[in-house]
Amino acid sequence: MSETIAFLGTLDAEEEADFLAALAAALPEETIRPFRTLSAEERAAIRIAIVANPDPAEVALLPNLAWIHSLWAGVERLVRDLGGNGVPIVRLIDPELARTMAEAVLAWTYYLQRDMPAYRRQQETGTWRQLAYRPPGETMVGLLGLGALGSAAAERLVGAGFRVAAWSRSPKPVPPGVAGVSGPEGLAGLLATSDVVVCLLPLTGETRGLLDAGRLFAMKPGAALINFGRGPLVAIDALLAALDAGHLSHAVLDVFEVEPLPPGSPLWRHPGVTVLPHISGPTTPASSAGIVAGNVRAYRATGRIPQAVDVARGY
Amino acid sequence: MSETIAFLGTLDAEEEADFLAALAAALPEETIRPFRTLSAEERAAIRIAIVANPDPAEVALLPNLAWIHSLWAGVERLVRDLGGNGVPIVRLIDPELARTMAEAVLAWTYYLQRDMPAYRRQQETGTWRQLAYRPPGETMVGLLGLGALGSAAAERLVGAGFRVAAWSRSPKPVPPGVAGVSGPEGLAGLLATSDVVVCLLPLTGETRGLLDAGRLFAMKPGAALINFGRGPLVAIDALLAALDAGHLSHAVLDVFEVEPLPPGSPLWRHPGVTVLPHISGPTTPASSAGIVAGNVRAYRATGRIPQAVDVARGY
Ligand SMILES: NC(=O)c1ccc[n+]([C@@H]2O[C@H](COP(=O)([O-])OP(=O)(O)OC[C@H]3O[C@@H](n4cnc5c(N)ncnc54)[C@H](OP(=O)(O)O)[C@@H]3O)[C@@H](O)[C@H]2O)c1
Ligand SMILES: NC(=O)c1ccc[n+]([C@@H]2O[C@H](COP(=O)([O-])OP(=O)(O)OC[C@H]3O[C@@H](n4cnc5c(N)ncnc54)[C@H](OP(=O)(O)O)[C@@H]3O)[C@@H](O)[C@H]2O)c1
Repeated sequence: MSETIAFLGTLDAEEEADFLAALAAALPEETIRPFRTLSAEERAAIRIAIVANPDPAEVALLPNLAWIHSLWAGVERLVRDLGGNGVPIVRLIDPELARTMAEAVLAWTYYLQRDMPAYRRQQETGTWRQLAYRPPGETMVGLLGLGALGSAAAERLVGAGFRVAAWSRSPKPVPPGVAGVSGPEGLAGLLATSDVVVCLLPLTGETRGLLDAGRLFAMKPGAALINFGRGPLVAIDALLAALDAGHLSHAVLDVFEVEPLPPGSPLWRHPGVTVLPHISGPTTPASSAGIVAGNVRAYRATGRIPQAVDVARGY
Repeated sequence: MSETIAFLGTLDAEEEADFLAALAAALPEETIRPFRTLSAEERAAIRIAIVANPDPAEVALLPNLAWIHSLWAGVERLVRDLGGNGVPIVRLIDPELARTMAEAVLAWTYYLQRDMPAYRRQQETGTWRQLAYRPPGETMVGLLGLGALGSAAAERLVGAGFRVAAWSRSPKPVPPGVAGVSGPEGLAGLLATSDVVVCLLPLTGETRGLLDAGRLFAMKPGAALINFGRGPLVAIDALLAALDAGHLSHAVLDVFEVEPLPPGSPLWRHPGVTVLPHISGPTTPASSAGIVAGNVRAYRATGRIPQAVDVARGY
């Protein structure tokens, strides 16, 4: 029999129970136990930890860890808290997440292209006015990030007839119909020409605060921003200034520096901002547990740790 | 040289000028003149009228009309006002209209499936709460009408992974992946099982008031309605009652009995209603003029009047 797998997280009780049940169903051959139920001796035998916002002090009490599997796709917190201790971190790469996120990108791109926020404001004032229609073929969507999520989003947008450009760290092969760009000039060109900019970057030392005042005001006048990556990628004060100046038309924000978004945040009441409670890329515990199960089984069969996050790069 | 074509409409001056310019560009070999510029003798020579909300009294002053080409897709007003005089009415069947309408159906279906109205209400009260996600594969969209527009919408919805049923007057071949239904039982089944009902019917004697209290309350509890057809297809008092009773979750209305929607209408301020100013299927004058040009040229070449509306059927 395999040794026990530890589960570490700071979820609420119901969420933890859901994930534990899904993991038990997906990996019936394994024993998976919450960290708090493990004795010191049992902790010393743990080789694999499955984590969801773990307390780093608890992770430090597992001296013989071989690797950590995150239940999330974004790992900036794990890299910050645990990146220094040399234990490989495997993140969630879930086709179902890519599908729901690509769907969200298309849905909220339509929200902007079909002028839903403006029609909403017109309804509030009882105004009947037909706004100029811009077809997808004349609407440039600029994606920041062309990884698992950005690529899936690019394909959906191209399928719907939008013009698509996408920015990545390294030049790389892009889906058909997408203009791939990289480097500072690539970013500048994308920002200057996109009607909708969609942020799907990981949060790293290089990407924190990327969309600052300079870059937001370098966007095409009247353009809109969708941030589905991480809150700190965007300088919120600068974003509000760009909206208030009329330089940008709207922002759809699903991620924030502090979540839940604090009640006092001006974002809640800004007419140019749509606040979403981190729902762009929903997954089910069953779907993520299935991915984790595949990785754990491959490790049991081969002894090879699945592809881990590059800690130096930050994602 | 061909005889003059008359243009009859009650558009505002700018719109009329746009359509006349587009028609002149699309049909440079023809002479197209507004009705008001024609002498009685010239009127007697008119064989073709291109119309946009024409005054029936003006049409009656063209004694030798061979056929009428509408610039709109919906012809309920022409059928009512002119259907009795025996002159064939040709309506607009424009692939660009089918494309923009199918896009609108997908965009506002996403609006409902991704819970945009509910998240908007949460934002208004500063509420951070993740709502249950229902994937397209578990979301049934019921289309009322499977003509030029309904078929295009069905294909887009199937492509996006939605379950799709569609109701038409006669049983007919349906796009792949669509469950085609007809008759009163077909309608009842569709209403009882659809999470989103999309109305793309023409307004006729049979369809006026189709969605009355009985049918709206026979919809699946929690379902939503999109009306992109014509206002009088839906009994508005009954719709408001179904929303207020919590039986229906939301309605997206693009068409109304009286347009512009009067300032006093309760629809403007109802939290469960999204009011759109008849923008779901935008066309450009250039696009519709191109379709008209094709039909006029085919007639000049063959002497055959293009496929006309069935006045008895009403569409
Ligand atoms: N809102 C939500 O519900 C939600 C859900 C899941 C994930 N997320 C966020 O989405 C992020 C992306 O996920 P993913 O799975 O697509 O990640 P991924 O596969 O690692 O892709 C990251 C992309 O960002 C690019 N990138 C990274 N640093 C860059 C830099 N400094 N300059 C330019 N491009 C850079 C990468 O470039 P290369 O291709 O050159 O490496 C890659 O294309 C996650 O990190 C997470 O923060 C949000
Ligand atoms: N909101 C907007 O911007 C906008 C723009 C354009 C058009 N429209 C509206 O959309 C309507 C539909 O356009 P279209 O080009 O798709 O029309 P269409 O090609 O004539 O198709 C009409 C569809 O409705 C069905 N139908 C008609 N009467 C019926 C009845 N009594 N019971 C069941 N089904 C019935 C027809 O059934 P069969 O297939 O059996 O004939 C057909 O499938 C137009 O009439 C217009 O009112 C709205």
